[in-house]
Amino acid sequence: TSDDGKKKKDIRRVQVYDCRPGSSNELPRKFNITDEDYNGFQCALRKEFSVPPDETFIVSTTDREEITEDIYKLLLDGKTLQLLESVHQMLPTATQERIEYQPHYHTLVQCGMYEYYASEGQEALPYAFAELIDNALSATRNNIGIRRIEIRLLFDESQGGPAIVVMDNGCGMTSKQLKNWAVYRLSKFIRDNTAFTSQEPGYVRPNPVPRSLNSDISYFGVGGKQAVFYIGQSVRMISKPASSPDVHEFIMSKEEFERKERDREDIYSGFIRNRMPGDSSHVNSSEELFLVPIVNEEVGKDSFTAVVITRLQQAHITYLKQHFTLWTRELAHTYHYYIHGINGNSLREMRVNDSSNNIDIQICLFEKPNRIPRLINLRDVNNDMQTLYIRSSVSTFEFKATGPKDLLVEGLVRYHPFLYDQETYPLDPYSASTEKEDDDCMVVNPEGRGKRPIFECYWNGRLIPYTTVSEFKWCEKPKKTDVVPWECYNRISGVLFANDRFEVSTNKLTFMDLELQLREKATIFTRVNNGQEQRVNIEKEFTSWLEECHVQFDKQVMFLGFLGEMRRADM
Amino acid sequence: TSDDGKKKKDIRRVQVYDCRPGSSNELPRKFNITDEDYNGFQCALRKEFSVPPDETFIVSTTDREEITEDIYKLLLDGKTLQLLESVHQMLPTATQERIEYQPHYHTLVQCGMYEYYASEGQEALPYAFAELIDNALSATRNNIGIRRIEIRLLFDESQGGPAIVVMDNGCGMTSKQLKNWAVYRLSKFIRDNTAFTSQEPGYVRPNPVPRSLNSDISYFGVGGKQAVFYIGQSVRMISKPASSPDVHEFIMSKEEFERKERDREDIYSGFIRNRMPGDSSHVNSSEELFLVPIVNEEVGKDSFTAVVITRLQQAHITYLKQHFTLWTRELAHTYHYYIHGINGNSLREMRVNDSSNNIDIQICLFEKPNRIPRLINLRDVNNDMQTLYIRSSVSTFEFKATGPKDLLVEGLVRYHPFLYDQETYPLDPYSASTEKEDDDCMVVNPEGRGKRPIFECYWNGRLIPYTTVSEFKWCEKPKKTDVVPWECYNRISGVLFANDRFEVSTNKLTFMDLELQLREKATIFTRVNNGQEQRVNIEKEFTSWLEECHVQFDKQVMFLGFLGEMRRADM
Ligand SMILES: Nc1ncnc2c1ncn2[C@@H]1O[C@H](COP(=O)(O)OP(=O)(O)OP(=O)(O)O)[C@@H](O)[C@H]1O
Ligand SMILES: Nc1ncnc2c1ncn2[C@@H]1O[C@H](COP(=O)(O)OP(=O)(O)OP(=O)(O)O)[C@@H](O)[C@H]1O
Ligand SMILES: [Mg+2]
Ligand SMILES: [Mg+2]
Repeated sequence: TSDDGKKKKDIRRVQVYDCRPGSSNELPRKFNITDEDYNGFQCALRKEFSVPPDETFIVSTTDREEITEDIYKLLLDGKTLQLLESVHQMLPTATQERIEYQPHYHTLVQCGMYEYYASEGQEALPYAFAELIDNALSATRNNIGIRRIEIRLLFDESQGGPAIVVMDNGCGMTSKQLKNWAVYRLSKFIRDNTAFTSQEPGYVRPNPVPRSLNSDISYFGVGGKQAVFYIGQSVRMISKPASSPDVHEFIMSKEEFERKERDREDIYSGFIRNRMPGDSSHVNSSEELFLVPIVNEEVGKDSFTAVVITRLQQAHITYLKQHFTLWTRELAHTYHYYIHGINGNSLREMRVNDSSNNIDIQICLFEKPNRIPRLINLRDVNNDMQTLYIRSSVSTFEFKATGPKDLLVEGLVRYHPFLYDQETYPLDPYSASTEKEDDDCMVVNPEGRGKRPIFECYWNGRLIPYTTVSEFKWCEKPKKTDVVPWECYNRISGVLFANDRFEVSTNKLTFMDLELQLREKATIFTRVNNGQEQRVNIEKEFTSWLEECHVQFDKQVMFLGFLGEMRRADM
Repeated sequence: TSDDGKKKKDIRRVQVYDCRPGSSNELPRKFNITDEDYNGFQCALRKEFSVPPDETFIVSTTDREEITEDIYKLLLDGKTLQLLESVHQMLPTATQERIEYQPHYHTLVQCGMYEYYASEGQEALPYAFAELIDNALSATRNNIGIRRIEIRLLFDESQGGPAIVVMDNGCGMTSKQLKNWAVYRLSKFIRDNTAFTSQEPGYVRPNPVPRSLNSDISYFGVGGKQAVFYIGQSVRMISKPASSPDVHEFIMSKEEFERKERDREDIYSGFIRNRMPGDSSHVNSSEELFLVPIVNEEVGKDSFTAVVITRLQQAHITYLKQHFTLWTRELAHTYHYYIHGINGNSLREMRVNDSSNNIDIQICLFEKPNRIPRLINLRDVNNDMQTLYIRSSVSTFEFKATGPKDLLVEGLVRYHPFLYDQETYPLDPYSASTEKEDDDCMVVNPEGRGKRPIFECYWNGRLIPYTTVSEFKWCEKPKKTDVVPWECYNRISGVLFANDRFEVSTNKLTFMDLELQLREKATIFTRVNNGQEQRVNIEKEFTSWLEECHVQFDKQVMFLGFLGEMRRADM
């Protein structure tokens, strides 16, 4: 063994407990064995623990492996050993061994692998993109002008790649914030936001806004990482905050984790690169050619963030190309009210001039060198489920549910009348049977709602896709109905807008207990009419609204004795 | 500022990049500023970077915060700084800052918080226990005699606690294995199992066994941690491997993580205690009185593991007491075939003498000092869903599905006949309407199966509760049926036993793509008759089996012209 040229790495210290029967040494002794051979170590032990010359002893690990001459050479720095009379003897007093148990890097690299599947066969990719859009919405919430969010699918391999870039013109990240981005599970609630020069406040809950469209959709400190490692195996975060002229860049990748593990380097250690906007001198592999124009675009921007994902799963690329219409529609559905404002994608009502109608979410698919990229602005999607509901409805019943601790749900029910011999209730375009590409006509459901739940559920303004609420007591089909024909109960759809007091799962696919909370006795439902809350019996109100809808809008009644249309004098 | 008595902690070194316009120094210079005041530092910079005396400069963080005299004092060891001409100047070349981004301890402490809820209102606690039973089954798989697994709910507060202990007489853990237990996401597939004295093999896939009852249900390196931090906030692992006379103990707790963060200690660092079996000298708080008898029980055991969970959520305690029958039944359901053997909890067939009928899973609830504990052996549960299915069925149709890469599903369909004016198809005891405590009579469903899916799904022999398979093409209700009345299709239940080639989610609540895989063209279904595979048309076989069941067992036909019972001569 070569013992010369000793680096810091080669220093070996062990701590040894005296565990011989009758020993009362409760504390271990430290031995520096860097320059000690096996015999020397034995002698040092004998001396330190005053073992009489006629007494034998053995030394073992805490797993009772005897330290023989061969094993002695393999001992690593920091090891804890036990001096024993014999290998099988009992320990008279306890010993302690220090261990390190840092989470394995699969915590990050595999965090997205399973989380997105709430059930089988559902394609989870749109919800991975949603996490990145959430972050971009959150980052652009204080923008003065347009809030621009762009997803670019760079599948034109002549430019390097494939890669996916999610860009926003939001507040960007300081170097410190970029570091915090990388810390798994460091949520905004526990983050240290202080800088030397400013004592930034901790998390401030945003003021209530209609439909809870508050853009405050960062919650757990995991979304971005789950998303990128579900989509690919490497991410390059590029960000510039308004406070600094520099762009900060940070790469996290499976490959790099594997290398660090192999080289026994610190796993969770890396470098942030600070550079001039537009400086692409560090891009030199042909695999990353696509980065050059992206870096060039930086020049002149006050602040921005670009999330560049590479090492994409091939199956994802195939899906994204083949089902472009489908998944962009699902994103339009998810952010419907952020994109279109509180009244949604209505033809009739003017868009309300609120802060949410300056949000521009654009998807751009680059496939072949000479082909024009496929481009869609989510605002132009006209066949997502909410658009279909809004456009086929003739009347809206608004309500509110409030509970203890600021729990608030705004809700609405829409009526889809029976017209000209058919139901106008829209079919679900996501359901397998209607999953035709580029089919954006409004398909109509012969049975109305059928067994589908009434309510889709939004949280802080964005859809939580796997939670629906079937109905409430006050709007369910009654056992016997004399006033309203039962089919009318199949002609309603609804939306619930829950505020941040409701909990969602970390993958934002399900609410934790929305329905349970709403069923609590303490939850009070009130009707809202022209923005005014009315403390009235909601069931009565609803039933009479439904009756009115029926009388006024259904153009034919199928089974009941229809006596002709009449307008009531009392209205 | 007191600068004397300098500890290692107080050493401060910074690295500084020369970022003045025109500079070509790409590498930073290191400065030890431990004993340097602000002016000294300025002088050292001027000298090192040869800044002419008439030139001014400033120093900033990588976030462009100027290092003033006040801020200088706050600089921590390892900081990266930039020497600039002015605060807003561009960087001529990039700088690099080293960052650390170890996952936050919430990765562990909150890992169970949301994962168990696949949908709303479902009580996830039984599945947290299931993770601990999985581990115990895995640890006892090579036991010679009885495999004993015990869950003790120690809610008698006169003995300290409350606490929950999960014990098994399995192989236990060496100190090294106990350390590996603590590493989040370190799965058995990537674990280093070597010891100095033995080169233990890596993961070895178990040989195929019927129903995949292979006890190999550890997969992701997260289950135990998710379970304990879902149930409580502190865990004490106590384990003894056969290879050593010592017991190893390790504590992981939210409180301890919080303390380490406060004291700026290494978060993922701790101590394993090695001690004599039965030595409870370290138990000295009255809160932990319940530990003493548990430690005393250690004496004489060859190997064991005890998982002791404390700081329990009060809501869990309430649930576990109030719904004792319900959740133990769900556990009996989950491990039905481990407990009862491959034929399940049948009255007719003798239990097969396989390795799985020596599994003893016992739950014990201690509530009050003078009350006899409530005790149940899962083998004695007679009203879990599988038992109900087995006991109400009169015939079984067995099959097998095989696919590429060793994919294997064993399956069976059972027939529940119409008898004496009613269906014998059992009701789901877990469904809300039948959730009465201690009601173990067999309730019967007037509509047979109704709209319920046919198949419950097991993976490596244990139930994956939130995945069901509705049907396969060959057993679904045909559009028109001349042979078998359609009600017969509502009289079947089924089980699928998938092997380890199918993926499940990390919380083992759902399969990833069982149904999709089974629908693949490459998947081949064959009938199994008396243990023999038959390459025949499974749909035909199934239909004729169903017809036979109908003819032979249904005692009355409701709507079709029943001509009387007959026994066919050809059988
Ligand atoms: N596009 C962005 N612009 C600015 N900051 C961002 C951006 N994306 C992420 N961040 C910062 O990084 C942090 C971590 O993001 P990540 O999505 O991983 O978790 P989170 O948003 O905090 O919580 P969640 O788990 O709910 O997504 C964010 O809180 C935010 O401070
Ligand atoms: N009761 C036990 N007896 C012996 N070893 C155990 C026991 N419980 C856990 N272990 C060891 O600790 C490891 C980690 O357990 P944990 O349940 O956290 O993850 P896992 O079982 O490996 O994977 P999964 O996420 O599928 O549960 C196990 O692989 C096993 O080696
Ligand atoms: Mg996020
Ligand atoms: Mg496990």
